[in-house]
Amino acid sequence: MKLHGYFRSSAAYRVRIALNLKGIAAEHAYVHLAQGQHRTPGFAAVNPQRLVPVLEDGDIRVIQSLAILEYLEETRPEPPLLPADAAGRARVRSLAQIVACEIHPLNNLRVLNYLTGTLGANEDAKLAWYRHWIAEGLTAFEALLATDARTGDFCHGDTPGMADVCLVPQLFNARRFDAPLEAYPTILRIERSCEALPAFRAAAPGRQPDAE
Amino acid sequence: MKLHGYFRSSAAYRVRIALNLKGIAAEHAYVHLAQGQHRTPGFAAVNPQRLVPVLEDGDIRVIQSLAILEYLEETRPEPPLLPADAAGRARVRSLAQIVACEIHPLNNLRVLNYLTGTLGANEDAKLAWYRHWIAEGLTAFEALLATDARTGDFCHGDTPGMADVCLVPQLFNARRFDAPLEAYPTILRIERSCEALPAFRAAAPGRQPDAE
Repeated sequence: MKLHGYFRSSAAYRVRIALNLKGIAAEHAYVHLAQGQHRTPGFAAVNPQRLVPVLEDGDIRVIQSLAILEYLEETRPEPPLLPADAAGRARVRSLAQIVACEIHPLNNLRVLNYLTGTLGANEDAKLAWYRHWIAEGLTAFEALLATDARTGDFCHGDTPGMADVCLVPQLFNARRFDAPLEAYPTILRIERSCEALPAFRAAAPGRQPDAE
Repeated sequence: MKLHGYFRSSAAYRVRIALNLKGIAAEHAYVHLAQGQHRTPGFAAVNPQRLVPVLEDGDIRVIQSLAILEYLEETRPEPPLLPADAAGRARVRSLAQIVACEIHPLNNLRVLNYLTGTLGANEDAKLAWYRHWIAEGLTAFEALLATDARTGDFCHGDTPGMADVCLVPQLFNARRFDAPLEAYPTILRIERSCEALPAFRAAAPGRQPDAE
């Protein structure tokens, strides 16, 4: 199995955590987004969407991080990243999607570049945008955790799963842009549970060979 | 089963199509987003994230449209909206996520309001933003369809699935903002396959009781 990623891509970071949790030793290819390596013809042949992550498993190629997580869950089910019951699975997926569909898409590099480039937003306006969408999403995420008895040491129960896999990279991003996090005590408690696990720590951006 | 939606929410539109394809007669509750009904305390009790759609199935409540689609697939598997093989399932999910994680999050109402409100973007800049992210996403979507033999009458084979369920509402949105679509012939061909089916037609925004 081979993962095309970038140390600071939070979508690739999600997949790194999942691979570690499942004990899969993948080969890693590094695509330097800030240097535009994703826009080369060579990488377009790997992924026409020119985004990371891309997972290759033999001749099967999967793009989009949540699709990759579901693929890993279906083909390497142990240990599971989704609970067994349909209601629990729906809850974990909806938490993961608050990050993947509501926060991260608004704050990734190409969007920030559009804001400061095409729209001429200054640095303060860019930071305010970033923090606004972090706050919108994490406020909902915290409410969903704090009001539900299924929240445990992790987002759902006492083992890490797909929601935790998405949450931790989003918190890393939030700190990069100095977004305040003190309003989310449940989230921060769960982050500490995650950071206690080698699978999460080894996936951190600063621990990757392409880190700067 | 009860769906909280809004006629013009493309995430709710996805769920309406899926319910119709699976032959599920759900009760509908209408949340008027443009009038701010999602910000009332009553609706916050239904969904702390204050977004539609929300699906209620007995005492199970599911938010986030892709999580709802997966929940329906797991609890009402016939007819399936995902293929049987892991590679095919991954492909369909990644297509769905190009819409749900790359295009739609950048173009929904709250984001456009931030652009024109907080950032002071004018109408032309807002439209350019909208069309830019439509073009980025649909260009990748078209490339993934046009270069893959698994594309059939629909995005994956000859029966409608999760990718089609996400694509059609996105095209409705694109037309609302006059985004050009002629560069996507495969997408337009598949849209015609979808529009031939009553399940898609009956889910259209203009056919809903809360349509204006």
